[in-house]
Amino acid sequence: MFLGRIVGNVWSTVKWPELSGLKLLLVRPYALADLAAPPAPRAPTTELVVCADTLDAGVGDDVVIAYGHAARVAVSQTLGETERPSVPIDAAVVAVVDRIEVKTGD
Amino acid sequence: MFLGRIVGNVWSTVKWPELSGLKLLLVRPYALADLAAPPAPRAPTTELVVCADTLDAGVGDDVVIAYGHAARVAVSQTLGETERPSVPIDAAVVAVVDRIEVKTGD
Amino acid sequence: MFLGRIVGNVWSTVKWPELSGLKLLLVRPYALADLAAPPAPRAPTTELVVCADTLDAGVGDDVVIAYGHAARVAVSQTLGETERPSVPIDAAVVAVVDRIEVKTGD
Amino acid sequence: MFLGRIVGNVWSTVKWPELSGLKLLLVRPYALADLAAPPAPRAPTTELVVCADTLDAGVGDDVVIAYGHAARVAVSQTLGETERPSVPIDAAVVAVVDRIEVKTGD
Amino acid sequence: MFLGRIVGNVWSTVKWPELSGLKLLLVRPYALADLAAPPAPRAPTTELVVCADTLDAGVGDDVVIAYGHAARVAVSQTLGETERPSVPIDAAVVAVVDRIEVKTGD
Repeated sequence: MFLGRIVGNVWSTVKWPELSGLKLLLVRPYALADLAAPPAPRAPTTELVVCADTLDAGVGDDVVIAYGHAARVAVSQTLGETERPSVPIDAAVVAVVDRIEVKTGD
Repeated sequence: MFLGRIVGNVWSTVKWPELSGLKLLLVRPYALADLAAPPAPRAPTTELVVCADTLDAGVGDDVVIAYGHAARVAVSQTLGETERPSVPIDAAVVAVVDRIEVKTGD
Repeated sequence: MFLGRIVGNVWSTVKWPELSGLKLLLVRPYALADLAAPPAPRAPTTELVVCADTLDAGVGDDVVIAYGHAARVAVSQTLGETERPSVPIDAAVVAVVDRIEVKTGD
Repeated sequence: MFLGRIVGNVWSTVKWPELSGLKLLLVRPYALADLAAPPAPRAPTTELVVCADTLDAGVGDDVVIAYGHAARVAVSQTLGETERPSVPIDAAVVAVVDRIEVKTGD
Repeated sequence: MFLGRIVGNVWSTVKWPELSGLKLLLVRPYALADLAAPPAPRAPTTELVVCADTLDAGVGDDVVIAYGHAARVAVSQTLGETERPSVPIDAAVVAVVDRIEVKTGD
């Protein structure tokens, strides 16, 4: 999994029917330097990940994102498909972060 | 999943039979800097992803790409194989993007 | 798998129910240079991985992390789900490291 | 999937029995800059991928490579194992490229 | 799969029981430049991969590493679990390399 900040939204009309009603968020992964104090400005070249969300997360939230089967399990359980996760996504918010504690001493 | 711009096409005669009739697109992933305003020129060294498309996307479209099982689920449903996705692809267009909204303030 | 140092913790209230009671750690992957002698100071830009832990590892420990199905197998066995690992995680501590031996001669 | 040029071969005697008779190729992935005109010299630091081939591709060919389950499906079908792909590979040639068309205008 | 040189070992006491007796190796992936002649000194910042080995490979050997399901299949067959690979690893040696041939002309 990775830790990221939600920075935006994506809207789409032409998409796989299984994605209907599923919110798609843009997430910027955190690197260790981003969590150092005092916070340094982040480089603007960071990669972007698109992930599904069913936990009601929004822009500015820090979240934990899981990839692959783990993401489909999480979203499928919301959609009531527990046996064979078939929603065509590969990343989803699995937790909204309350607090992060980092020890960068060594 | 990731957000990308379709930049080209790939044609092939010698290929796995399961790929017959499946359009293969070249997609350039977006980084966060690419979505800042005013848009800066993009570096030409970006990696390229080849993905299957059954949503009728074309060069210049912005799309959401899913990897792995998610991609096979999406394409297999078009091909009528719902039970055991066996098409040998690992990336597919799952949504054509209408609008992107990014907050880069922090 | 990869070798990393545990550098922090993540706390979350809003999360998938399957994550309840599962410790989430922040792990900084090692590069080869980090293991050379004398140890050089590490660059602060290292990527961060969030992983589940059921082996009682803590900040400062060196661990081996596995991704994907391997991580779910490891954690599901603790949770008593041996047949169909459905916990929505994609990375877990599978070993706490006692000793590392590296030959960097060539 | 990704687009790459075959640049070499790998030979092995001690290997998993399931790999017997399976050709292993070294493939250099293309970046977008490599496809621009006039072709610039490529950086020599490119990563290398080892992939299985059952399409009779050779050094100098441009190919599409699929990862993971998709690769095993492709190779297993050659080996006559359609139900449960168990060949221990994670990358395979799924198409030999005839023509690439790239629009790098924006 | 990728091509790498074995550069070290990892020892662990606290680990998943399924890892008992399984050798864990540190492997440094090759980039294309590393295979050019005359061999240039390698950058010391290379990433490190931890992988399981049941082919009796050792420090200094060049090996082919497979990820994910492929790795579990390879190791599970040694452990006598052919049906449902459940060993919690995600990378394994699948071949010890005898000879590499690279054409870097273009």
